[in-house]
Amino acid sequence: MQTNEQELRDAQAFLMEHDDFLVVSHVQPDGDAVSSTLAVGWLLSCLGKNYTMVNEGPIPRRMSYLWHADQIIDLSENPLETTYKHVICVDCADFQRVGQTQKYFAEKAHILNIDHHPTNDAYGSVNLIHPKAAATAEILFDLIEFMGIELTEDVATALYTGLLTDTGGFRYSNTTPKVMAAASKLLQYGVDGPGLSELLLEQLTYPQLRVLTKALNKLQLSEDGTIGWVSITPEDMIETGAANEDLEGIVNYPRNIQGVEVGMLFKVINDNAVKVSLRSAGKVDVAAVAQSFGGGGHVRAAGARIEGNLEQIIKQVVERVKVQL
Amino acid sequence: MQTNEQELRDAQAFLMEHDDFLVVSHVQPDGDAVSSTLAVGWLLSCLGKNYTMVNEGPIPRRMSYLWHADQIIDLSENPLETTYKHVICVDCADFQRVGQTQKYFAEKAHILNIDHHPTNDAYGSVNLIHPKAAATAEILFDLIEFMGIELTEDVATALYTGLLTDTGGFRYSNTTPKVMAAASKLLQYGVDGPGLSELLLEQLTYPQLRVLTKALNKLQLSEDGTIGWVSITPEDMIETGAANEDLEGIVNYPRNIQGVEVGMLFKVINDNAVKVSLRSAGKVDVAAVAQSFGGGGHVRAAGARIEGNLEQIIKQVVERVKVQL
Repeated sequence: MQTNEQELRDAQAFLMEHDDFLVVSHVQPDGDAVSSTLAVGWLLSCLGKNYTMVNEGPIPRRMSYLWHADQIIDLSENPLETTYKHVICVDCADFQRVGQTQKYFAEKAHILNIDHHPTNDAYGSVNLIHPKAAATAEILFDLIEFMGIELTEDVATALYTGLLTDTGGFRYSNTTPKVMAAASKLLQYGVDGPGLSELLLEQLTYPQLRVLTKALNKLQLSEDGTIGWVSITPEDMIETGAANEDLEGIVNYPRNIQGVEVGMLFKVINDNAVKVSLRSAGKVDVAAVAQSFGGGGHVRAAGARIEGNLEQIIKQVVERVKVQL
Repeated sequence: MQTNEQELRDAQAFLMEHDDFLVVSHVQPDGDAVSSTLAVGWLLSCLGKNYTMVNEGPIPRRMSYLWHADQIIDLSENPLETTYKHVICVDCADFQRVGQTQKYFAEKAHILNIDHHPTNDAYGSVNLIHPKAAATAEILFDLIEFMGIELTEDVATALYTGLLTDTGGFRYSNTTPKVMAAASKLLQYGVDGPGLSELLLEQLTYPQLRVLTKALNKLQLSEDGTIGWVSITPEDMIETGAANEDLEGIVNYPRNIQGVEVGMLFKVINDNAVKVSLRSAGKVDVAAVAQSFGGGGHVRAAGARIEGNLEQIIKQVVERVKVQL
């Protein structure tokens, strides 16, 4: 379960031997991406190195409490004037995930690729990939410990944020003994774990709660109670003032009903297109269902964009899920 | 933060020196009460002791997966024929919390009182009280370790259940480094942490989700957005088939809205009585508000039963919260 020691040594050498790094993460950065960017920045500042932290776009406002979060440059607002020979990519499963940041990679730039996705294709000159880690933050926790650098509350808060968000608050199946031991150690550095849980996992905006209510009002169950679904129309979005990101998590409500095997959210995009998100309790491979409609995903979480009107599409998808049950 | 060693020694002596124990917990047992009862039973079985586990009423059906959960006797269904000289009370802050189980305590029974509530008044002959523990399960984790007994998956699952439920899934302010370290160790014994999180923290019944929807449809905010509330009528309960326990957690929805300082749930009991539950984000002492209506509770979670009709009561309570803001 530990991160590979040779890879840790190579990563350390990359950081020690070079200077003037570009630190990047994936497009539309989540908690782990932001936290890992900042943890690498913190590590480089401990080593007295120069570095620039960037992202293709803005980081979520909710994460502005993080140490130096305001120093991650939003390239869509503030393009850089130079390119970098040494780049550190965190939490990017493949090279394309870095998005527009690649414009600032020098030709033949040396890349240190730090990631936990099992599908990572080792695109770096140096790769520190640990597919069993719950988050890239967990790998950075290992790297900092390996390098013998003492944590501070700032970096501990960033690392805890990465663990918390990528494990869904220590609830997903990636919540290993090692994750909990790391969380325990991070709390000892003064991290406000409960405060972070509230901010990142429990807080809702008013439009978010209103659009959730709209969806729940349309909750339907199959006759045998094994399939549950809700839907959202463009009118719901306008009336509640909700943005697309406010729909995150809604699909879990039908999915979490006792007895439901597959929960779904149908989002009407326009008169002739619907986006469906599917979540499985384990029995049904929803990736297969999504693929049959031209979509994709994982066994327990998948999605597809389907042409047609809402009523027809709901009927078709429910029928196809039933076949799998 | 560790449990007091002299108290651990005394508790161990109590278990070693006697036999034929009655193990009881509090009325309307929650996750920690059930888990602690079973963990004590497991410990006694390791010591080769005779014991009887009881509760005043039934244990929640959701917890039937726990080792020997079916051996906790529901005294309302199956009264005992005898009384016990040696009683172990777990998770009971005061003697009255044991409810009807006390009918089976022999006169001058010796009581071992194991609990984590700061208000525990040390009613036992022997007291093992650790107010900084997140759960009674945490104290039992210490006791089992102190006694040098190797954990098994069965008891680890019970202890994890107690930690998980009493910390709200490692989110409340009692989530200490020690809790996370204990959780890490318990997972090493094969506990299905993610499965327990899903079952105990995420799963909803259909009536639960429907009554939540009814409540959310009535969401209101004060003009400045610092107070949010929902309400439930007897008609809502009938229409959705919800029971009182299905209302648990609903008050957190208004409370979790960004900017809200006080969230409230008004439950109409009859034409002339309403029960209000209040939750504070920290600024307002809702216990004081509840007390001013003859209720009580904690600084961040309180409640009261108020005579009057819903509209009047909402107005009064909102006004009284405003004064505190």
